[in-house]
Order: sequence, then C-alpha cells, then structure tokens
Amino acid sequence: MDKTDNIQRRNRSVKAALLGLGTVGMGVYRVLRMQEDEMEDKLGSRVELKYILIRNREKAAKKLTDPSPLTTSWETILQDGEVEVVIELMGGIEPAKTYILEALRAGKHVVTANKDLMASHGQELLDTAWDHGCDLFFEAAVAGGIPIIRPMKQCLAGNHITELMGIFNGTTNFILTRMAQDGMEFEEALRLATDLGYAEADPTADIEGLDAGRKVAILASTAFHSRVTFTDVYMEGIANITATDIKYAREMGCSIKLLGVARQTREGIEARVHPMLIDSSHPLSSVNDSYNAVFLKGDAVQDVMFYGRGAGELPTASAVAGDLFQVIRNIHAGCCGKLGCTCYKNLPINPMERIASKYFIRMQVEDRFGVLASVSSILGNNCISISQMLQKKKTGDSAEIVLITDAVEERHIRDAMKVFDEMSIIQSISSLIRVYG
Amino acid sequence: MDKTDNIQRRNRSVKAALLGLGTVGMGVYRVLRMQEDEMEDKLGSRVELKYILIRNREKAAKKLTDPSPLTTSWETILQDGEVEVVIELMGGIEPAKTYILEALRAGKHVVTANKDLMASHGQELLDTAWDHGCDLFFEAAVAGGIPIIRPMKQCLAGNHITELMGIFNGTTNFILTRMAQDGMEFEEALRLATDLGYAEADPTADIEGLDAGRKVAILASTAFHSRVTFTDVYMEGIANITATDIKYAREMGCSIKLLGVARQTREGIEARVHPMLIDSSHPLSSVNDSYNAVFLKGDAVQDVMFYGRGAGELPTASAVAGDLFQVIRNIHAGCCGKLGCTCYKNLPINPMERIASKYFIRMQVEDRFGVLASVSSILGNNCISISQMLQKKKTGDSAEIVLITDAVEERHIRDAMKVFDEMSIIQSISSLIRVYG
Repeated sequence: MDKTDNIQRRNRSVKAALLGLGTVGMGVYRVLRMQEDEMEDKLGSRVELKYILIRNREKAAKKLTDPSPLTTSWETILQDGEVEVVIELMGGIEPAKTYILEALRAGKHVVTANKDLMASHGQELLDTAWDHGCDLFFEAAVAGGIPIIRPMKQCLAGNHITELMGIFNGTTNFILTRMAQDGMEFEEALRLATDLGYAEADPTADIEGLDAGRKVAILASTAFHSRVTFTDVYMEGIANITATDIKYAREMGCSIKLLGVARQTREGIEARVHPMLIDSSHPLSSVNDSYNAVFLKGDAVQDVMFYGRGAGELPTASAVAGDLFQVIRNIHAGCCGKLGCTCYKNLPINPMERIASKYFIRMQVEDRFGVLASVSSILGNNCISISQMLQKKKTGDSAEIVLITDAVEERHIRDAMKVFDEMSIIQSISSLIRVYG
Repeated sequence: MDKTDNIQRRNRSVKAALLGLGTVGMGVYRVLRMQEDEMEDKLGSRVELKYILIRNREKAAKKLTDPSPLTTSWETILQDGEVEVVIELMGGIEPAKTYILEALRAGKHVVTANKDLMASHGQELLDTAWDHGCDLFFEAAVAGGIPIIRPMKQCLAGNHITELMGIFNGTTNFILTRMAQDGMEFEEALRLATDLGYAEADPTADIEGLDAGRKVAILASTAFHSRVTFTDVYMEGIANITATDIKYAREMGCSIKLLGVARQTREGIEARVHPMLIDSSHPLSSVNDSYNAVFLKGDAVQDVMFYGRGAGELPTASAVAGDLFQVIRNIHAGCCGKLGCTCYKNLPINPMERIASKYFIRMQVEDRFGVLASVSSILGNNCISISQMLQKKKTGDSAEIVLITDAVEERHIRDAMKVFDEMSIIQSISSLIRVYG
C-alpha cells in the first residue's frame, strides 16, 4: 500500500456487524484480535466490530471483555449507515436470509458461513448483491478453513472443471477413520465422536450426508457455472457401513469414505453424497480423522487437491476473516460487487438412476447348489456383469457372497435388488456400496 | 456479469502479448483456445493474443495454425498502446526483467511464470507495478498449477503463518519416489527421469535444490510479509541420497523427501531446501512421483495443504490463465494495481548454523572396542544427544552406525563432523540427513 493512501485510510476504520456469537462468531472475534497489529499494513485500515447481534445479552456478555457492541436489535444495525459490512454467522434459513437481503439492499457488503442458505438460495442472494453493487462472500460455507471458492472462481478460471469430489464432513470422516483404524462398529465410533465433541447432539445432518450435500451443491454451482441446489443432490449416509465392509474393502486395496461427487457429463450435472470404496493410492483415501479435502479435475490443471480443517472455531473463522479482509480491500480500492454469481450456464441435472457406478455387493444366501448361478443370471438379466467375486464364507446353512460389479446404471442395480428381495434363497443384502473409478 | 456491461465489453477484446512460445507459452496459447467459448461470459470480453514474441520465426510458425501474431520485435509490442497485458514466459533474468519493467512503466499489466526473476528481483518489480497502478501476478512461478500465491494473499490473510513446507520440485520427487518404490539408486532414477522428460538436459537446478529454493524465497516472502530472496535460502540437493538411506528411513517409519521449509521464529525467518526424513503419517510423505504440494501452518487455519501438478505445459498454463483472467476482470472493474507487494515487515534471516534440527547420521567405523564410546562422547562434547541408535552392521573390519540425534543447532553438528573427519577410527560419514519434527 502506498503511504499517503494508508494515512488517509487510517483516519477511519471500517465498521462491521457480527450476527451471532456462537463457536464461529467467537472465532472471528478472536481472529480480529489476533490480527489487530497487522490490519493497517495489510488492509489500509482497521476493522471495528461496532455491533454483535445476539439473543441473550447476559450469556453473550460473559464471553467478551468489552460487551458494549452487543445488541439484540437487527434494526439498529440495518439503520446504521456507518456499518459497511455484515458478517452473518447465525446459520439456518431464517432470519438469516431476510437479514442478508436487507443488508444488501441497504448497500452493506455481506460475508457469510451459512451453507444451508447458500445451498438453497444462493442464486437469489448473489443476484441481490450484484444488483446493489455489493460483495457477498461465502468461503466459510464450504470446507471450513480450506480455501476453495475463491481459488475456483479466480485461480482455476482457465479450466473446464469436469469433476470435483471430496470429504466434506469431518464428523463422518472421523467415525469412518475410527472404524477403519480401531475396528469399531458405527455406533461405538459415533459415541466417541459425540464424547469428543466432533458430533452434535443431533448428528443427523452429518450422518445422513445432508451437511456434505449442501457443500456439494455450492461447489458444483461454482465449478460448473450452472446452479445446483441442495434438492438436486442425491444423499446417502454412513449409518449402514459396518466394520466388516471396511475390512473387505481393505482386502481389495480400498478404503471407505463418505464422498461428495459432482461431475459434468454430456447428460448434464451429477451431484451426490454417499459412502464409496476408493483405492488406497488415491490422495483422498489417506485423508483421515476430522480433516476435509476437495479434489478437482480440470482440463488444464489436471488433478489438484485442497486439504485442511473443514470445521472448528478458528479454521472457519480464518475463511470468514479472509472474505472480510477482501471486502475491506475492495472498499478501499472502490471495486466492490465486481465478482458476482458465476453461473452463466443452465445445465440439466442427471438423475441418480441414470448414473453409472461400480458396486460392492455383500449378500447372505442359502448355502445350496445353484444359488451362485441364479444370482449371476439375475445380475446378467439386469445388464450387470461381475468384475470380481471376492469370497464365499459359510456359516451354518448360509453362505456370504461378496462381489464387485462393472460400471452399470443405478436403475439396473435397483431392479436387480427388487428381484433379490423376493427370492427365498437370498437371505439378506448386507451391503450395497458404490466403488469409485 | 450484468448484460449491459457485457454488451459494452464485447465491443472490444482485451489485447495481450505473449513473450516466449516454449512449453508453457504453447500451453497458454492452447488454454486460451480451450476457453474461447466461455471467455465473454466469464470475463466480460474476449482476450486476443495480438503478439507472440519469439526469436526464430520459422521454428515458431510450425507450432501455430495462424502465425500472424509472431514477432521478433519487443519494441513493436512496447509501442503498441492497444496491448494492455504482457504475459512473460521467457524465463531467466534478462531480457525478461527489462521487458517487464518497460511494460509496467508503459502502464501494461504483467503476468509472469518467471521464478528466477521473482525470487531475486520481486521487490523491484512489484514496487514498479504499484507505482504505475498495474497488476503484476506470478501464480505460475510457484508450484505450477497449484493455486497458492492468491490463496495466501487473500483467503488466508486472517492468519499469522508460522511455517510453510512443501515438495516444490517434481523432478527430484519423481527420482526419490522411484528410489523408494523400486529400490533404484540415484543415478538410475535420474536416467529414467531424463528418458521420460521429467529432467532437463542439465538437471543441476532441480537436483541441487536451486529450483525449489527460488520457490521457497517467493512463498516465504508472501507468507511472512517480509522479503526473502534467493540468496537468503540455504540449499542442499539429493545427489548423495542412497537407496540404503531410504531403506533405513522406512524402517523408522519415515520417507525421505526434498523439502522446502520456511519458518518465522523469534530469531527471524529461516528458509531452506534439503532432503529430510519425514514421518509416513504426514500428508507430505505420500506426495509421490512428479506431484508437488505446499503445506502451511497458520494460527487460525491450523494445517492446510495444496496438492497438484507442479509443472507441465497445461497445469502451468492454468495458473497463467487464472492470473490473466483476473487482470482482465480488474481492467473491466477499473481496479487494477490494488494488490501489490505485501511485504510490510523487515525481518532478519536466521542463518543455517543457528537452526536446530534432528539429524540422521550413518557412519562407517573401525570395528574395534571403544569406538562407540568415543563417537558418543564427541557428540556429547558438541551438545548433541542421541535419540535413537538404529543398528550396527559389521562388514569385514568395519561396522556401520546409524543414529538419530535430538534437535540441535547446525553449528554443533558441523563441529562434530570436523572432529570425526580427523579420527582414523571413523572411516566415513555415509549420510547426514535432517529429520523433520
């Protein structure tokens, strides 16, 4: 920054309002403290949190050395012309959506970590920001501290991104890691995750893949320049994965991960979250514990991966602060609202039943002559060919068949499973897990 | 982009000049072709390569369908007011430096992949760009296609980065991978790298760590906001690493990588490139073949890693195109030259002899009573304590001692080695390799 600029800027500090003082809110508060000495050199001015919007003043006051910015009135913030940036960290759809829209219409720039909102209403919010010449940044909404939205929109802009996949949920990755490394069953690993604070009281959104699904919607929209919303994403959780599946997968040189996958194909965009076998040599296979990673394929960059903390107070605050600092630089440079929605295409969504995958199938069958033959023929009748037959373990009068199919469209697998369900010789389908590649 | 803007912008295309048509130059030419259909939606205008500066017109003409942009005259490009962006891909210090300075002084924005230049003269170039309100972007100068400079300057701006380390050279990483996976010796692996085109005819800059050293200088300057130049970086190559060292390292749960490391400590900045033992559980340990990766520690983001292709025609062109597209967006937004040099500190460089590391030492000694005792006492006299004594293999009248020390300042190791050199019972120091952590 050149000196005279700085001196002018230092005469004023940029005033911001923080909405919410939960984990991430406190993280942002702390990070701004940690950056206090460097802000002027880095940004050309200080940032002042003029307001912190909370519900319970007593509870919030306990967290702060100086409680004076605390307010319970959104109106006060909205009406205050001095507030140039609003940092929305309340989460959920309402009132966050209304607040963000009102802030943008009032010409205030917005930084948000709200994945629910961006995954469902991203288009409306980004269009409103654009119409009012405001910045709306949401790096923290995906993969916590890992820089991915801005790198995709800027650094990788010279690519056609054909595929993105990743581990977008730390809770489920921690659970699967414990199951793989310590042989725990799902319930036990979930209990440990809860005890350690990795899993929330109600872990549904994590376990069922909803949290990862929201991130896939946001990333796919950014990667393919075509809007993908939460409801376009097929989601399946990890509750049915067993230590046995993971053991068999390892014997096949694979690990099992809850992967978010989005692809752009001739048929359109496919976007999905489900457990998947992935080869141990793939970089995502060694992403363990609560770490996240995003793996992209572009026609120029080829393979690129971003790895780091996908959640947590300070890592998520790091992403929020990066966006906030960019808004402040843009304010000083007089170029806010220049990078809006990058969805200039309108591609169809390819429905799940049309998407081809390989499948890992584990089934318990009656141990009698000809069973294997009829299993194979039913698969054959449904255009499913067997790539590997893994093992056939006998216990009492039943036998276990573990096989991997060649790539086949989902609808054929579903048809085959319907037939198996009605056959007395098939006692149960223990597992049906997709295989990457 | 809003429509009226686009229509206005489409009336003109931004004119750029490409300096150099080698591997990366051809890559950029191809990437711009690949992006032709999307440019207007993405950037608000097209990019036209009005000039391509080359030395040999016949040779260059063979590479292009349309040779009309070819010129051998820099003056023509410099004088042409229509040219708004210069893409410097010639490499080396001169004439690249003069051309870039002249371009900036003429108000032309510059994108460069020139690590030699940025590592030695980055300050002067960035200051000149700033003084003339021009963009000077150099993402492609470090780690090829991997986005790292912009993510550090923007996404991670809310962090104090305390450490960065990485694998910054694909050639040496390919060689070390072959030595580790196929048990090759260095010379054999180098020959393979040359045959496969990974190593250049004169591989010195790669093998000796000079190429990685330039990248460390650029990254450290960006990460610590204090200028680090090529000459500040301590460099040591991989020519002395043997398959035996790698075998012993594996027995200790480590792999050997050529790592670039930069840290900010109370004593100042340390910046170095040398082979290092690193624990197999560290994400960098599984970065193999010609892949690169950059691993950062920040006080907010904690651990974050960027992984991908560190070289090659299209991956490097991806980084150049990302910078070029950003310049074009900035031109349309009227906010060029806003993100200049971010080195607002002036920290001292901590000299190598003052930097503490653990060391892996492999030595051949006379197989006679008391040798081990005198080795230990000499280490002890130089403040070096032994953490692990690995093995003691006898061959004829000599024995092999392999040990790992606790962390100790380099100067003490150097002193101890001097003493060992003069002792007849020490036949040779086969290996002296630093250990990470």
